[in-house]
Amino acid sequence: MRMYDLIMKKRDGHVMEDEEIKYIVDGFVSGEIPDYQMSAFLMAIFYKGMNDHEILTLTTAMAESGDMVDLSPIEGIKVDKHSTGGVGDKTTLIVAPIVAANGVKVAKMSGRGLGHTGGTVDKLESIPGYRTDLNEHEFFDVVRKTGISVIGQSGNLTPADKKMYALRDVTATVDSIPLIASSIMSKKIAAGSDCILLDVKVGSGAFMKEVDDAVRLAEVMVALGENAGRKTRAMITDMDTPLGNAIGNSLEVIEAVNTLKGKGPEDLTHECIGLAANMMVLAGLGDEKHCEELARKVIDDGSALERLIAMVDAQGGDSSVIKDTEYFTKAKYTHDVISDTDGYVTDMDAAGCGIASSMLGAGRETLESEIDYAAGIILKKKTGDAVSKGDVLATLYADDEALFAAAERRYKEAVKISGSRKERNPLIYALVSKDGVKRF
Amino acid sequence: MRMYDLIMKKRDGHVMEDEEIKYIVDGFVSGEIPDYQMSAFLMAIFYKGMNDHEILTLTTAMAESGDMVDLSPIEGIKVDKHSTGGVGDKTTLIVAPIVAANGVKVAKMSGRGLGHTGGTVDKLESIPGYRTDLNEHEFFDVVRKTGISVIGQSGNLTPADKKMYALRDVTATVDSIPLIASSIMSKKIAAGSDCILLDVKVGSGAFMKEVDDAVRLAEVMVALGENAGRKTRAMITDMDTPLGNAIGNSLEVIEAVNTLKGKGPEDLTHECIGLAANMMVLAGLGDEKHCEELARKVIDDGSALERLIAMVDAQGGDSSVIKDTEYFTKAKYTHDVISDTDGYVTDMDAAGCGIASSMLGAGRETLESEIDYAAGIILKKKTGDAVSKGDVLATLYADDEALFAAAERRYKEAVKISGSRKERNPLIYALVSKDGVKRF
Repeated sequence: MRMYDLIMKKRDGHVMEDEEIKYIVDGFVSGEIPDYQMSAFLMAIFYKGMNDHEILTLTTAMAESGDMVDLSPIEGIKVDKHSTGGVGDKTTLIVAPIVAANGVKVAKMSGRGLGHTGGTVDKLESIPGYRTDLNEHEFFDVVRKTGISVIGQSGNLTPADKKMYALRDVTATVDSIPLIASSIMSKKIAAGSDCILLDVKVGSGAFMKEVDDAVRLAEVMVALGENAGRKTRAMITDMDTPLGNAIGNSLEVIEAVNTLKGKGPEDLTHECIGLAANMMVLAGLGDEKHCEELARKVIDDGSALERLIAMVDAQGGDSSVIKDTEYFTKAKYTHDVISDTDGYVTDMDAAGCGIASSMLGAGRETLESEIDYAAGIILKKKTGDAVSKGDVLATLYADDEALFAAAERRYKEAVKISGSRKERNPLIYALVSKDGVKRF
Repeated sequence: MRMYDLIMKKRDGHVMEDEEIKYIVDGFVSGEIPDYQMSAFLMAIFYKGMNDHEILTLTTAMAESGDMVDLSPIEGIKVDKHSTGGVGDKTTLIVAPIVAANGVKVAKMSGRGLGHTGGTVDKLESIPGYRTDLNEHEFFDVVRKTGISVIGQSGNLTPADKKMYALRDVTATVDSIPLIASSIMSKKIAAGSDCILLDVKVGSGAFMKEVDDAVRLAEVMVALGENAGRKTRAMITDMDTPLGNAIGNSLEVIEAVNTLKGKGPEDLTHECIGLAANMMVLAGLGDEKHCEELARKVIDDGSALERLIAMVDAQGGDSSVIKDTEYFTKAKYTHDVISDTDGYVTDMDAAGCGIASSMLGAGRETLESEIDYAAGIILKKKTGDAVSKGDVLATLYADDEALFAAAERRYKEAVKISGSRKERNPLIYALVSKDGVKRF
């Protein structure tokens, strides 16, 4: 087999054989196939696509390119969750404790933030002492003891995806459904859970801009998961406006804790109940309505928050900051963004809000950047809200006052205020399962 | 400007600005833009194409990426000729002396052979002592003295094309009209002649398989030449069957000499008269009919052959092998390929014939391979000829008898013999000039 011929085959729109796809994935990981051939091949996929069987073969080859985690030593049903990424998305910190409090195990590897999106690992590392680098033995132990563990990606998980993603990221071949679906699902399949809930975001802060595209991506991913023997569902949720009011690492942990105490923002609470319920449906705890009740119950009785505290303790974190979030280190400076005008917030560019937060020190531009865990933004007005001149639109947090001017400019660019009120988009657009698509 | 954004722009089918194209060409040559981004960009061009203005900008940027040869110190009109490559194509060795004998200057840089196609530089180097590495001063001097000089590509000519071609060659992005046209024409424009005759080959031994595709490519190239202020024409000629009877370096020089003596194969003679006539039309010597007469005249009176001898002398070659081709070193062994059957030659895969010749030592698989100048094939039966069982189809020449078995097998695969006669394709399909397309 010659890579040249395989590039040409896909370039000309032909369907590739299983062995050909495996040859490419293995050859790319081993370094035998150089980047410049792979990027031409990825661009050919961008244009010519892949059929369902090709995507399945690609996903399996990517999953099998490194370690396959075997979670069977942990008793019970393990449910994983993946979000396609957004701004202010702290749902993992809320839904994992909720389902764990209902007896479902969550053994989850999460990523770090990059660009305008945050990462669960960064958020957890804002808790003093919290270790995200557990070895497999420690990881399994924490799940067994507390029902939940969230760590960073460790070991040699899907090296094919790591290498392919890095290349796609610089060659304009990211937004291709076969490539997105195989990237996400190879990691989830390698990570070993029995069930997978996907949260596919749509809107200005998300990769997918249209609901229909998100549904198509979700359908492909659900089929991949089910074909790999994992119960899989996908929720299509809104990311046109940041989720909740907090953007920034410890600010988001505080908001997650408040939500687990029943005092979170309405949008965030509603979405988390939906996500947690669907994770429990996958785990076989009943129908959606029943599982939503189960979710609310463990918020009300405090048992979900207890799970979060137990996990933080088990992973070496100082849980006093969870028990009383006032103990979190605070940013040295705050700065209010004031409205110059009367009207209604009609649009928030979620990506723009994420970038503003990143400019304050909350995010990283490159994987090497240092993060300021206390930096970020608390939103005071969101899409649909009335605003008067002089109102605080948001409060910025940073350790360096010099950062406020540029971040404020960027934030104001992201928030549109006009004379006539516009309703906020629905929070949940659709649910995709092996039984089909249910739109709300 | 970011290469990522420029890849995305072309990927999405947008027209690129002049500065954007120049940025890419310059950045790729300087190494600032890595291969993996360039190959993704080239694949995007493969799918989305370029408009005429984009191709012109690309071609100009590539031409200007290195030295631009200034031929003005040489008096008279300089005409260049380019063939898209074929098997047994020794036309340069014939047409350059013909036009030089008519007072038109030819200052030509040629390439080496690779794969199944030969290269004029290799053919000339089969003449003992012939130097293809003249410096500019020597090169100009030979043209002034003899009217003609053919050398290898020297100096820093179109480094952008060299780097881009090497990448296209391994990423299945060769067969794209904007990329082929800009590659050829950037070199021809940088090489500095006033007029350019293009010989676009069609058929089994050529890059273009269909006449219509060849005409489209020719139209783009003629427009590029004219836009750059060079008088440009293109002939669309057949390469379904090797041209003439000789394949291999000194074997082809011998056939070229015979053709200049008026004793060449009919197909080769006919095509060379047409090519030479069109070069003289471009140089302003009259209409096609008149220029064909001029071409025949200098064959008949021996003055064209004298020009070849003069050039060989001036470039340090031993012209005794031209005056009497019996002096060429001969291959140690010959081997006749015998027909197993009666019938007619209905098809010759020209590329297959070229590969068989290469297997005998006449060609190179990589640019580092050594060439056996005396190796090759003399065709005894060509498309349209009747064949009886036991007839010699071709004679193979090599310095190692062990090479015959595999080359004979390959040659026989390339030659189809069947019961009913098939006419050979026309030699010249069309002429493309700034006035339009004339089909024959």
